[in-house]
Amino acid sequence: MTQNIYDRDDFFAGYSRLPRSVKGLRGAPEWPSLRAMLPKLRALRVLDLGCGFGWFCRWARQNGAAQVVGMDVSRNMLARAQAETNDDRISYSRADLDRLKLPRASFDLVYSSLAFHYLKNLDRLMSQVHQSLRPRGSLVFSVEHPIYTAPSNPKWLRSTWPIDGYMNEGPRTTDWLAKGVIKQHRTVATYVNILIAAGFSISRIDEWAPTRQQIKAEPAWALERERPSFLLIAARR
Amino acid sequence: MTQNIYDRDDFFAGYSRLPRSVKGLRGAPEWPSLRAMLPKLRALRVLDLGCGFGWFCRWARQNGAAQVVGMDVSRNMLARAQAETNDDRISYSRADLDRLKLPRASFDLVYSSLAFHYLKNLDRLMSQVHQSLRPRGSLVFSVEHPIYTAPSNPKWLRSTWPIDGYMNEGPRTTDWLAKGVIKQHRTVATYVNILIAAGFSISRIDEWAPTRQQIKAEPAWALERERPSFLLIAARR
Repeated sequence: MTQNIYDRDDFFAGYSRLPRSVKGLRGAPEWPSLRAMLPKLRALRVLDLGCGFGWFCRWARQNGAAQVVGMDVSRNMLARAQAETNDDRISYSRADLDRLKLPRASFDLVYSSLAFHYLKNLDRLMSQVHQSLRPRGSLVFSVEHPIYTAPSNPKWLRSTWPIDGYMNEGPRTTDWLAKGVIKQHRTVATYVNILIAAGFSISRIDEWAPTRQQIKAEPAWALERERPSFLLIAARR
Repeated sequence: MTQNIYDRDDFFAGYSRLPRSVKGLRGAPEWPSLRAMLPKLRALRVLDLGCGFGWFCRWARQNGAAQVVGMDVSRNMLARAQAETNDDRISYSRADLDRLKLPRASFDLVYSSLAFHYLKNLDRLMSQVHQSLRPRGSLVFSVEHPIYTAPSNPKWLRSTWPIDGYMNEGPRTTDWLAKGVIKQHRTVATYVNILIAAGFSISRIDEWAPTRQQIKAEPAWALERERPSFLLIAARR
C-alpha cells in the first residue's frame, strides 16, 4: 500500500495549516489553470481521487454536478471532508488508489489534485479510470512536476533548480512537512504514455508555474518561475 | 527567416565532424528510439523536414518508402545530400521551414530530426504539416529537450544540470560548434499543445537519454542520464 502520510500526525498538522487547507481551492495557486481544463460540470457524475478535505467535491456540486464521489486513503482527511459537507449528492469513501477497482462506465469526469505522484501502480489505476468513464468522459489531474520530483537534493541553488536523476524513475524520499515523505518520480513521457496505453487521448498539458500577476501579489514566489512546480493533464476517453 | 547556422563555415565545419555527420543514423545515439516510433515505411510517401545530409531520406527508401522528399534551409547540407544520393525517388529542395507551404494530403509520414527547435513559427508549420498528411498519416520528430534548452547557462555543475528560465519561452543563444547559435526554447507542454491545436492526436512521447548499455559502450555519456537531451514525439493526423 502507498504510504498514508496524511494520517501521520506531524504531517497532517502541517498540511492543515497550508493556504490550500485553510482557504480551499482559492488557496491553491494552480487551481485557475486546473479549472480551465475542466469540462462544464452541469449534470455530470464526478469522481475525485484523493479528495482530501472535499473542497473540489463541494465546488463541483455548486457548479452543477449531478453526483460527486470523493475517495481518499486518509481517515483524517475524510473525517474533515464529511464534517464540512452537507449534501446527499456527495459521498466519500476510503480507498487505496494503488488497489482501487472502479465500476464500469459510471463517471463523466475523473478529477485528481496532487495525489498520483504518491502512487506506485499508476498504469493499473489509469486502466481502471478509463473503463470507469463513459464515452467521451474526461480525466483532469495535477501532479508534482517531474522536474520538481527528480532531484536527489531538491533545493534551489543560486536561483537555479539543479536536476539530477531525471531518467531514474521510482521513489524519492523528502522532508516536506514531516520527515520521510515518499513520492514516486516519473518522467513527463511516462505520465503521457501511461494515459495513451490506457486508451486515453491527450487533450492538453500544462506545466504550471505562477503567472507574473501572481508573483506581483506574492513576490516570494518569483523563483518558482524558473522551473514548473506542477504538471496538469487533461485527457479524454 | 530562421538563422541559417548550417551555412556558416565555422559551424558547418564543426557539424561535419560530428559522429552523426560521419556515420549517419548509427552515429546518432537517439536514432534507435526515434526509429521505434516510426510506422512501417513500405510504400509510404515521406517528407523529411530539415533533412541535412539526407541520411534518413536514403534509409527510408532502403526500407521501402515509395517516394521521399527532403527539405532543408542549408545549401551546404543540400549540396552534400545531392552528391551522396543516387535515387530518382528521392528529391531535395531548399525551404525556410518558418514560411513553408505544403501541398494538401500528400504524405503518409512527416519526419524531422533536431530541426524544430530552430524555428520561430512552429504552430504555423504544424498546421501546414497536418494538412499535408493523408488521413491517419504520422508525424515523428525529435527536438532538443526543453530541460536542455531552458537554462541561461547550460552547463553541468557537480553532476547536476541547473535549470532556470524554463517558463520563459523564446530565443536562447549558445556557443555550440560556433558562437551565437540561436535556438527557440519551448516547454514540453507547448510542443504537445501546438500539435493538438493543429489537429494531431499524440501517439507517444520519449524523453531521450542514453541507455545503460550505451553508457557501457561510451562511459563519457554517464552524466547524460541525469537529464534528458532530446524530446521525441509521435503523433497522428
